[in-house]
Amino acid sequence: MTTKTVLLVYAHQSAGSFNAAVKTAAVDELKKQGCRVLVSDLYEVKFKATATEDDITGAVKNPEHFCYGNETMLAWQEARLASDIVDEHKKLKEADLVIFQSLTIFIVNFLKFPMYWFSVPAIMKGWMDRVLTLGFAYTLEKRYSEGIFRDKKAMLSFTTGSHETMFSSNGINGDMNVTLWPIQNGVLNYCGFQVLAPQIFWAPTHLSPEAPAGPLGGRRPPPSNEAPLAFPPADIFDKGKGFQLKPEVREKQADSPFGLTVGHHLEKPLPPQSQMKAGV
Amino acid sequence: MTTKTVLLVYAHQSAGSFNAAVKTAAVDELKKQGCRVLVSDLYEVKFKATATEDDITGAVKNPEHFCYGNETMLAWQEARLASDIVDEHKKLKEADLVIFQSLTIFIVNFLKFPMYWFSVPAIMKGWMDRVLTLGFAYTLEKRYSEGIFRDKKAMLSFTTGSHETMFSSNGINGDMNVTLWPIQNGVLNYCGFQVLAPQIFWAPTHLSPEAPAGPLGGRRPPPSNEAPLAFPPADIFDKGKGFQLKPEVREKQADSPFGLTVGHHLEKPLPPQSQMKAGV
Repeated sequence: MTTKTVLLVYAHQSAGSFNAAVKTAAVDELKKQGCRVLVSDLYEVKFKATATEDDITGAVKNPEHFCYGNETMLAWQEARLASDIVDEHKKLKEADLVIFQSLTIFIVNFLKFPMYWFSVPAIMKGWMDRVLTLGFAYTLEKRYSEGIFRDKKAMLSFTTGSHETMFSSNGINGDMNVTLWPIQNGVLNYCGFQVLAPQIFWAPTHLSPEAPAGPLGGRRPPPSNEAPLAFPPADIFDKGKGFQLKPEVREKQADSPFGLTVGHHLEKPLPPQSQMKAGV
Repeated sequence: MTTKTVLLVYAHQSAGSFNAAVKTAAVDELKKQGCRVLVSDLYEVKFKATATEDDITGAVKNPEHFCYGNETMLAWQEARLASDIVDEHKKLKEADLVIFQSLTIFIVNFLKFPMYWFSVPAIMKGWMDRVLTLGFAYTLEKRYSEGIFRDKKAMLSFTTGSHETMFSSNGINGDMNVTLWPIQNGVLNYCGFQVLAPQIFWAPTHLSPEAPAGPLGGRRPPPSNEAPLAFPPADIFDKGKGFQLKPEVREKQADSPFGLTVGHHLEKPLPPQSQMKAGV
């Protein structure tokens, strides 16, 4: 078995003992599973979150109408990207699995609030905006199941401020599967990653280094061997007809009580737990 | 009629003529509608996107286990927040309507890619993470329809790289209503804002200052008079029972062919276009 390389993209501000302990535990556990572990500790390195002209070394092509995606694609082709992006590209190329870990995606620790607003914190969003460069991470031809990273896996790992039932379709915050869709489909699946079921710590009442707090705590088998969540193959959409679902696929789906995915719901009930569990 | 104050939270990197023209057009149009306009031009002021200890003046309470939400709530109460956050708080307090405008939420201009990954760019996410301070913008008691900003309106304004049909439940990117849910519900509605239908420019093939490019272009009546999107009142969830939908509400909903919202879908088809149009 070849050694798997895991990139841990980590975003938590506290240099305090608890979080240090959690991160150490995560790295230890992954190593115990035989993985080589790379860490991008975003707050620690003061990762630049905003996508600007400074991400390009040398002159930009069109300063009058600066277009970030276009300019960074050219800079990538010409090896003129900022060094911190180049570093992350290198890690990403080596990684078989990328874990996006933020202990407080949805909360303020202990206070249980959706601090980071039903999404990843800005510094992690900045990693996605800046590191997933056009050309390097995707093109119009290479996306979704035909995506550039289709041999890699990716996984979200986070705590919530609310109990699981509050993030159900019957609970005040609505269905977590819907909340996860834009990130898991629009970022990870878009680049071709095989998306593993997220690791969610529901409303931990007491976070201590002894708690099941290692970001992989209680998760078996090792994530690198897990089956990914189901997303539709790109070729069921007709490129020649505005990337609409092919009629024959839609027909085949007619008898199903559920839509294909959260986003491709086909005006039917959503497939239950499809963004949370593999094999559903 | 009292003058409405509009806060335009604007995120585009280009200082070039096109974007300057668009922003100017937006401000002009709002003024023509009789509004007082405040602008937060995030790239222009190099808005700090990451939520860190530097957002607090003076000592933090618990440096060993720094908790951003807790610490900034205390700093807000004690008037020790960073001055850029204080400035934004002041604008937000004065605003009747907040427009979040990013010309490239889902794309690289012209190249038509989901550049900002099915969400707002990191710098705008940073505005949300840092300015919507616990205590100032929400508490556990004051959220959703009982939220602090329930007398204010908010609206997203953005272009897409794909045609509208590609962001349908039948299209490759999935239903835009699902993509919008975490931001419009989890950020805007969570703070109590009345959420206006988003202004979406679908795959503009040619962006020029003469195009219908003013962020309010073609939108009538003025957004400040529009009816908001429908979200369920907070009191239909039972606080005493884990904020679950009250059984009598669920029963009343039994005959409806649709769920309540995108997130509160109750295992039924999603209400069509509910994140895109008012009155549905």
